[in-house]
Amino acid sequence: MARINDNYLKLQAGYLFPEIGRRVREFAENNPKADIIKLGIGDVVLPLAESVVEAFKRGVEDMAKEDSFKGYGPEQGYDFLRNAVVENDFAGLGIDADEVFISDGSKCDSGNIQEIFSIDSKVAISDPAYPVYVDTNVMAGRTGAANDSGTYEGIVYMPLNDTNNFSPELPKESVDLIYLCSPNNPTGMTMSRSELKTWVDYAKQNNSIILFDSAYERFITEKDVPKSIYEIEGAKDCAIEFRSFSKTAGFTGVRCAYTVVPKQLMGQSSSGEKISIHSLWNRRHCTKFNGASYPVQKAAAAIYSEKGKAQVDERVSYYMENAKVIREALSEKGFSVFGGVNAPYVWLKTPEPDSWGFFDSLLNSCHVVGTPGAGFGPSGEGYFRLSAFGTKENISTAIERIRNGLPS
Amino acid sequence: MARINDNYLKLQAGYLFPEIGRRVREFAENNPKADIIKLGIGDVVLPLAESVVEAFKRGVEDMAKEDSFKGYGPEQGYDFLRNAVVENDFAGLGIDADEVFISDGSKCDSGNIQEIFSIDSKVAISDPAYPVYVDTNVMAGRTGAANDSGTYEGIVYMPLNDTNNFSPELPKESVDLIYLCSPNNPTGMTMSRSELKTWVDYAKQNNSIILFDSAYERFITEKDVPKSIYEIEGAKDCAIEFRSFSKTAGFTGVRCAYTVVPKQLMGQSSSGEKISIHSLWNRRHCTKFNGASYPVQKAAAAIYSEKGKAQVDERVSYYMENAKVIREALSEKGFSVFGGVNAPYVWLKTPEPDSWGFFDSLLNSCHVVGTPGAGFGPSGEGYFRLSAFGTKENISTAIERIRNGLPS
Repeated sequence: MARINDNYLKLQAGYLFPEIGRRVREFAENNPKADIIKLGIGDVVLPLAESVVEAFKRGVEDMAKEDSFKGYGPEQGYDFLRNAVVENDFAGLGIDADEVFISDGSKCDSGNIQEIFSIDSKVAISDPAYPVYVDTNVMAGRTGAANDSGTYEGIVYMPLNDTNNFSPELPKESVDLIYLCSPNNPTGMTMSRSELKTWVDYAKQNNSIILFDSAYERFITEKDVPKSIYEIEGAKDCAIEFRSFSKTAGFTGVRCAYTVVPKQLMGQSSSGEKISIHSLWNRRHCTKFNGASYPVQKAAAAIYSEKGKAQVDERVSYYMENAKVIREALSEKGFSVFGGVNAPYVWLKTPEPDSWGFFDSLLNSCHVVGTPGAGFGPSGEGYFRLSAFGTKENISTAIERIRNGLPS
Repeated sequence: MARINDNYLKLQAGYLFPEIGRRVREFAENNPKADIIKLGIGDVVLPLAESVVEAFKRGVEDMAKEDSFKGYGPEQGYDFLRNAVVENDFAGLGIDADEVFISDGSKCDSGNIQEIFSIDSKVAISDPAYPVYVDTNVMAGRTGAANDSGTYEGIVYMPLNDTNNFSPELPKESVDLIYLCSPNNPTGMTMSRSELKTWVDYAKQNNSIILFDSAYERFITEKDVPKSIYEIEGAKDCAIEFRSFSKTAGFTGVRCAYTVVPKQLMGQSSSGEKISIHSLWNRRHCTKFNGASYPVQKAAAAIYSEKGKAQVDERVSYYMENAKVIREALSEKGFSVFGGVNAPYVWLKTPEPDSWGFFDSLLNSCHVVGTPGAGFGPSGEGYFRLSAFGTKENISTAIERIRNGLPS
C-alpha cells in the first residue's frame, strides 16, 4: 500500500483555527439564539477600499477583452506590483523589484519557505507563534514527536512571556533558521531596533537565516519601531521578509502577499558551495506556483495609489481604535494586558493557566470567541488573544459582555 | 551557514517554460522586427467568457460592501463551487462535494500532492510529461542525480512513443505512486477505457495510488474516451484526480483549479496503520493554503451556468478547430503527427531527433515558438509540441510560414 508521509501523524489534533471553528459550530448548534462575536481568527470585517475595488474590476475588465487579456503572468508577479512594493514599502532600503516575489498569501510563503533548506536544519521558533511555522517543519520531518505540552523534539523554542517582555532571547546553541515575527502574532508586541540588531548580528555570526514575518507592520503606531528587518544594517545578508495585504487592506479573502529574498543572501550546499537563496526560491516559485491572479495583483497595486493609501490608513486606524478599547477595558477589569499598541492583537494573561478553558468560558458566558494561547505553542498557555478585527459595534458589545459577564 | 535543500541542485538547468521564454526574448532582441507567434507555452488567448466576467465582477462587488464582504473562506473552497463541480463534472460518479478541494491552480496541486506521501515512495511517471511531476519529486528527494539524457535515478519512467501508441505500459516492478495524464500533455493522446481499467486494476493489486491529471478533459471530442478516472470501477480506492479551469475557461491568469480526493482512498503508515489520504490532503491544504480568492471562485462557478457552459464550449471548439488546422497542415507537409483530436496539443516527430534544434530552427525560419519534446522528459526527444492555443489568424499565419519556410 502506498506509504504516507509519517511526519503528518506527529501533528497535534487539529490546526488551531479549524479547531476553534469546530468548537464554535458546536456551541452555535446547541445555542441557536446566541449572538456570537468572533474575535478569534483575526479576520478583517471592513469591505475593500473603493480604490481597490475599482482597480480589481478594471483588472477583471482587462480579462474580458482580447487585446488586454492576460494569460499566464510572471510567476514572481507583475512588475507594476513589484515596483510599487519596493518604491513604497522599502524606499531607501536598497531592495530591488526582482527581490520581491508576489504570492497568493503569506500562509503559503511562510509555510513553503522551509522547503528550500536542508531537512537537517536546526530551527528556532519564538513561542507562541503563528502555528504554520512549527507545523510545516513538522510535516517536512525536521522534528521528533510532540510531548504532552505540544513541544516538538528538535525545535528550539524561544519563549515569549511577561518576564522577558515577550522578546525572544538568543538561543544558547547555534541554529540555522530563525522565525521572528514583529509586530508579533499572537502577542501584539514588537521588537525594537536594538533587539533586531542583536538578531541580525547573531545570524551573521552563526551563518543563520532569519525568516522575518512583518505581516502586521502597517499597524505600528509608535515611532522608531522598525517596520522591516532591512532597516537593520546587514540584514540583507541574513534575512527573508514576509509581508501580506491580508490585514492592512482586507485581503484575507482576496489573497495576495509577497516575500522579499535579497539576491546577496547565501546558503550552503552539503559540499560547502555557496548557493543563492534567491535562485532556490525562484526555482520553487516557478515550479510549484503559477503567479497570483492578475486582477488580484491589479487590486493590490491600488493600495499604493494616493487614494488607496489613505483608505488603507482609515481601516488601520479603525482597527487600532478597537484595539485600544479592548486593551483599556480588559485592564480596567484587572487583566494583565499586552500588545494592542502596534498590532491589532491584545494578549491577556488568563486567570488560570488553562487557555482552552478560558476559551470555553468566554464563549459560554459572553458568546465571544477568542484564541487560546496554547494554540500558538506551549509558552502561549496561560495567555489568550483577542483580535481587534471586528466592527466597532461588535467590539463594544463584546467588551460590555466581558465587563459584566466574565469573572476577572 | 544555513544549509540548503541539496536536492534542488539535481534539477536540470531551467524549468522548461522559463527556458523557452529566455530563448524567445533573446531572439526578439536580436530580431526586433520579427512577428513571433507563440504556440509554445500552451497559454490561452481568448478573453474570459461574458458570464464569467459578470460573476467575477459581482464577486468583487460583494467585497465592496460590509454585509456581503468575505474574509477568510474555507480552505477547501466555497460550497457553491464544490457543489457545482460534483453536479456537473462528476454527475453519477458518486463523488461528494467534500472530496473536492478548490485551489489556485493545478500546477500547485500536482506539485504539492507528493508531500503527503513517504519520501521512500517509488514513483512512476509517463515520459514525456508535464515537468512538474518529475521536478517536484526531485526537489523532495525521491531521486538520485540526472544522467546526460535528463533521466533521474530512482524514477520509473514509462515511455510514450509511436511504437506503443503513446500509451504507458505497466511497470515491471511494483510502484507506489503513478502519474497519468489523459488527455495527455504533451502528446495530445488519450487513454481508452480499457487502458485505464488496466491501470486501476494494477493499482489495486499493487496498492498503488494513481495521480490522474485530466486538466484537458473538456477537449475530448471522440465518444467513449473517459473524462474522469472515476468512470472506471474501483478508481475511488486508488486514484486522485486533478482538474483545472485554466485551459477550458481561459483561467491561466485568473488561477483556479481543483483536486478530487475520495474519502475511501487509503495509504499506509510505516507502522502498517491505514491512513485516510483525504485527511492528509485536508491537513496540508489547511496548513499551507488559505483558500482561492473569493471573486475567482465566483467566476469559476459561472462556468457551470447554462450560459457559461455554452460560452466555454465555444472557446473549446475554437481551439480544437485550430488543432485540426495544425494537424492537417503538418500531415500534408509530411510530418508524423499525433494528438490534436481530443486535446489542444499536436505532437509531431521532428526530422532529426534533436527537439531543441527543431525549436531553434522553427523560431529562426518561421518565427514560430513551439515546445521541444526533450523538455518534457527523455522520451520526448525527437518530438515537438505545437499548441492550438492561439488566435485563428495567428495559427493560420504560423501554418502558412511552416508550409513555405520549414524544410520537412
